[in-house]
Parts: sequence; C-alpha cells; structure tokens
Amino acid sequence: MSIRVGILGYGNLGRGVESAITQNPDLELAAVFTRRAPESVKVRTGVKVLHADELEHMQDEIDVLVLCGGSATDLPVQTPHYAAMYNVVDSFDTHAKIPEHFAAVDAAAKKAGKVGIISCGWDPGMFSLNRLYSNCILPEGQDYTFWGKGVSQGHSDAVRRIEGVKDCRQYTIPVPEAVDAVRSGSNPELTTRQKHTRECFVVAEEGADLARIENEIKTMPNYFSDYDTTVHFITQEEMERDHSGLPHGGSVIRTGVTGLDREHKHVIEYSLKLDSNPEFTASVIAAYARAAYRMNQEGASGAKTVFDIAPAYLSAKSGEELRAHLL
Amino acid sequence: MSIRVGILGYGNLGRGVESAITQNPDLELAAVFTRRAPESVKVRTGVKVLHADELEHMQDEIDVLVLCGGSATDLPVQTPHYAAMYNVVDSFDTHAKIPEHFAAVDAAAKKAGKVGIISCGWDPGMFSLNRLYSNCILPEGQDYTFWGKGVSQGHSDAVRRIEGVKDCRQYTIPVPEAVDAVRSGSNPELTTRQKHTRECFVVAEEGADLARIENEIKTMPNYFSDYDTTVHFITQEEMERDHSGLPHGGSVIRTGVTGLDREHKHVIEYSLKLDSNPEFTASVIAAYARAAYRMNQEGASGAKTVFDIAPAYLSAKSGEELRAHLL
Repeated sequence: MSIRVGILGYGNLGRGVESAITQNPDLELAAVFTRRAPESVKVRTGVKVLHADELEHMQDEIDVLVLCGGSATDLPVQTPHYAAMYNVVDSFDTHAKIPEHFAAVDAAAKKAGKVGIISCGWDPGMFSLNRLYSNCILPEGQDYTFWGKGVSQGHSDAVRRIEGVKDCRQYTIPVPEAVDAVRSGSNPELTTRQKHTRECFVVAEEGADLARIENEIKTMPNYFSDYDTTVHFITQEEMERDHSGLPHGGSVIRTGVTGLDREHKHVIEYSLKLDSNPEFTASVIAAYARAAYRMNQEGASGAKTVFDIAPAYLSAKSGEELRAHLL
Repeated sequence: MSIRVGILGYGNLGRGVESAITQNPDLELAAVFTRRAPESVKVRTGVKVLHADELEHMQDEIDVLVLCGGSATDLPVQTPHYAAMYNVVDSFDTHAKIPEHFAAVDAAAKKAGKVGIISCGWDPGMFSLNRLYSNCILPEGQDYTFWGKGVSQGHSDAVRRIEGVKDCRQYTIPVPEAVDAVRSGSNPELTTRQKHTRECFVVAEEGADLARIENEIKTMPNYFSDYDTTVHFITQEEMERDHSGLPHGGSVIRTGVTGLDREHKHVIEYSLKLDSNPEFTASVIAAYARAAYRMNQEGASGAKTVFDIAPAYLSAKSGEELRAHLL
C-alpha cells in the first residue's frame, strides 16, 4: 500500500513535491490543498484540489502532509497546527527561529502522536547533515559554506521593492579563489566580501533613474552593502529568455587535522549543482515524507530534524537490500 | 563521565583510534589490547597495554571496544565474539561478505543486549551514506564512485608478492576527464579503464629482471589487467623519502533528474581528500563509538551500520545545540 501524501500550498515547492511523488512508486499524491479558491488552481498531474479547510477532517485519507508555504508567516502557524492532526514535513528555513519552531511543532506532534519533520531541504537539510557529520569526524577543524551559483529569491525580492524596478533576478556567486583556497586545506579567514559576489539582472520601468537604482542596490544594508555587486539592466524579453530558471547549489567544506601532532590534513566537501532549487528541495522532502510515515508507524512522535532520522528511513528498500547494494 | 574505549589491535588503524580519542574530550582510552606479548607493544600515549585474553573479564571497565583487525581473517571471528560481551565498532570492508558478517554480529549483540556497529569508515562508511542519501533524493539517476588519488594497500601487497620485488607503493588515480564528464551531468557510461589509472613505485631486488616484473604487474588479473598501469622503479631511499604516507580520498557522485518531464539535472558530490587514510577511518570510528554507547544506553541492541544510526548520535552536543548551530 502506498503512502498517501497531501500537499498544502501550490507554488514552486508544491509543484516540485507533486513531481517528486511521481518518481517514488511507494508514494501517492492524495490531494493538493489550497487557501485560494480550489477551482482557480490548475494542477499539472490532474490530482484533486481541495480547500485547506477540508484538512480538518481528512485524517483517514492522508498519511503525511507536506507544508509548502513560506517560512516568514505560513509555516510558524501551519506546521504546529497540522502536526496536531497529521504527520507533517516542512522546509522552514529561518535559521534563527528554528528552536522556537521546533518547540511548537514538538508539543503539537507529541500530543497527537504524530511525527513532524521541520527544516527539510538542502540548507537547512543536506548541508546541515554534512556540517554535522564532518564536525563529528573532524572535531578540530573549520567549516565553510559557499552558496551558488544560484538565484536567491530573497535578494531578488529585495531589489524588486526598489522604486523604478519592474523585475529582478539576483545570482549569488562564490568567489573561485576563495573556494580554491579552502579546498587546498590552507584554512583561510574569509570576510563576507571575499566569499561571494552578487550579480543582479534588473528590468527597470521606462524613464527610471538607472544610476539611482544601481546605487540603491549596491548600498542596501544586509543584502548587498557587504558584497561586491554587479548590476545589469536588461529588457523584460531578456529576463524571460535568459533568467527564467531557478538554479542553485553550493558547497559545504570542512577542513581538519588528525594525528597525535595534528600533522595530517583532511578536506571533506559536499557539493550540489542544481538546475531547479525548488524541485531538489521537494525531492529531499519526498524522501523525508516517507521517513515521517515509517517512523510514526514504529511509534515515534514529536518534532524531528534531519539530525534525528536514521538514513535508512529515507529509503523504500529493506535493510538487507541497502546493505547488499549501497554499503 | 567519559565513554571508556578499548582498542583491540595496534596497527595503523589502532594507532589512528588512539590519536582520534585525544581529539574527543568525552572519550577516554581505557587500554590497548593485543594478541602479541603486551610488553612488545609500545603505545604512543602511554596507555596500558593488555593481552587480548583480558577482554574476557573487563566488561565493567570498557564501554565500547573498537576492533582494529583485518577484514580477511580477524574481524569475521572477533566482531561476533566480542559483540557478545561489549558494544563494538569495526571497519569490516569486504563488501561481498557484509550480509553474513552483519547476521553473525546481530545474533551475538542481540543476545547480549549490546550494539555492534560494522563497516565503519569512509568506504564502506561515509561513501555508503552519501550513496544512500543521494539515491533517496534522486531516485532516477546514476551513481559514480572514484577512488584516489591514494595508496591502495591491497594492490601494493599484490605487487610485493611478485618475485624480485622488495617493496611497492601503488596509487589509484581517477581519470580527470572521466570525473569532469560525470560532474557535467552528461551521465557517461565508463569502463573500468576509463575511470581509474594505476601507478606503481617499485623497489626491485638487485639483479632482478625489471621487464618481467613490469609485465607481471601490468597483466595481473583483477588487480591491474583492466587498467592502464604505469610502473616506476625506484630506490629504497626514494621509497622512504617520497612514499611513506598513506594518503587517499575520492568522490561519490550521483547525477539525476527531476521535473514532470525529467527536464532538470542535478549533481550531488561528496569528496574526501585525506592525508592519512587510517587516521581518517579512525576518526569516523571514534564518532560511531560514541553512537554505539549512547544507543545502547537508550536500550538499543544488535548489529547496526551507518544507515541505521541517526546522525545526532555521533555528536557529544545536545539536540538543542545542534539545531541552534549546525542546522
């Protein structure tokens, strides 16, 4: 029998989960749920679309609910709410607020006897896992995380809020020399500016003051002022032709030493090169949806992160098969 | 209170575990055990050396026993034997025999209420973990493993058995073009010869027939005949000066597709660059020794592999700390 998955929220991530489920024969998409008018949502696989209110009474039809809302306002409310009714998985990525989110989901899920997996994706998610494994293996060492080359939604949105900007796509780009220095094991101390550059492709409104826009971008605190930023003004057609994808990626690198005299250096690197950030995140979520269901079947409950989940739970294969073929 | 670790076997791996324990403040080396005469073994940290026979009655003094023998003959006997008395960790790496080894350790450990972690290191070990995670995230894709550049003990030993050879160091080297093709996401089909080359540094006995030795190496079935192999004859001094280390490393790469039309490509890569193969393996083992003890304290028993162990068990830090700093 398949694991019946529900999706709440049908943006890029929700569509990614819909498509990831088609790649996992033991998962089955039960329904897409939306807070909009269901008839206004056209799903690509033809699965039924229901209003989110229906979730209040569909516990018998859904084994795991995947929450595809945003971390700013949706998930802090939705994940604890639905963890009281369903096994849930979310991709909450506001790092600073993870402790309180975990606590809220944990309380709700424990009370309901459900499993709630939070902060699932690649960062937080697979990058976090690799930070943890590498830190445990090389306790004396240094961590580096590089993001990109890829589109940052948050930075693109920040530029779009500037007066005179119609559209923007912002790429975060690791500085190749910094990555090479880290890979060499030389343990460099790197400033924010030395690690990444930022590149903005901007469609301006007709007659807008381009010099002012460029200056506002480059001096924007937190988002751009600590980076070397390049701004290109392009047409709407160029934007659609050249920048419609959502690629991303990056590397988590830990360098460390072993030996009684700490005389041997080691470099552990985990890298991702992703054509579609939301689809890859969704693929991680699909695997953890399986884990949520299986752990709950074995009696587990409460909030979990990728740190708390034995890798074998992510796979549809048996322990015997995994040991024979992947170990 | 520290976790008290015993080491059985004081070769390269045993020495690596001894040194790894000095990097983990919550671990404490209780004793080194040997099947040789204890007084003949000089340990580098000055810890006491006992005969392996003492292990029959030291259950109150050791929380985890790390088995540092070889996979060919030592571990198939030792790991089940000691899993009946202690939490144990080994680095059993005969891939084909893992299922039977797992079964033997599982039976002994379950009966004794102990945890036995087998096949711990980097391959099997961290490479296996990355194969598993990547396969679960990208169910439609292709796996590639490259080893090196690094010293293969097995291949070095095989050459040493050739008549006229005094010493040999064999390096396994990934073919750069093959690695690049895989990283590009082009999903190449690669033969054994296309993936790795082999390089041998050989000290020959005086008057030995070098042409014959080179030919015997290059045509040796399984070990060399499927590879492009280079043979260099060097002096014993050059061997000691240039080839005394045991570096290794490699990459596990999975490429796969997502999207309803499988239109987006993704590349996941995990790479290691290690100055000391045995010390890195030992560092992985030290982290899993902690996990063995902690899981057993929580009531777990039986054989486990890296697949069965939630990552948080490897860390001395609490769940709160891990979520706050590494997630």
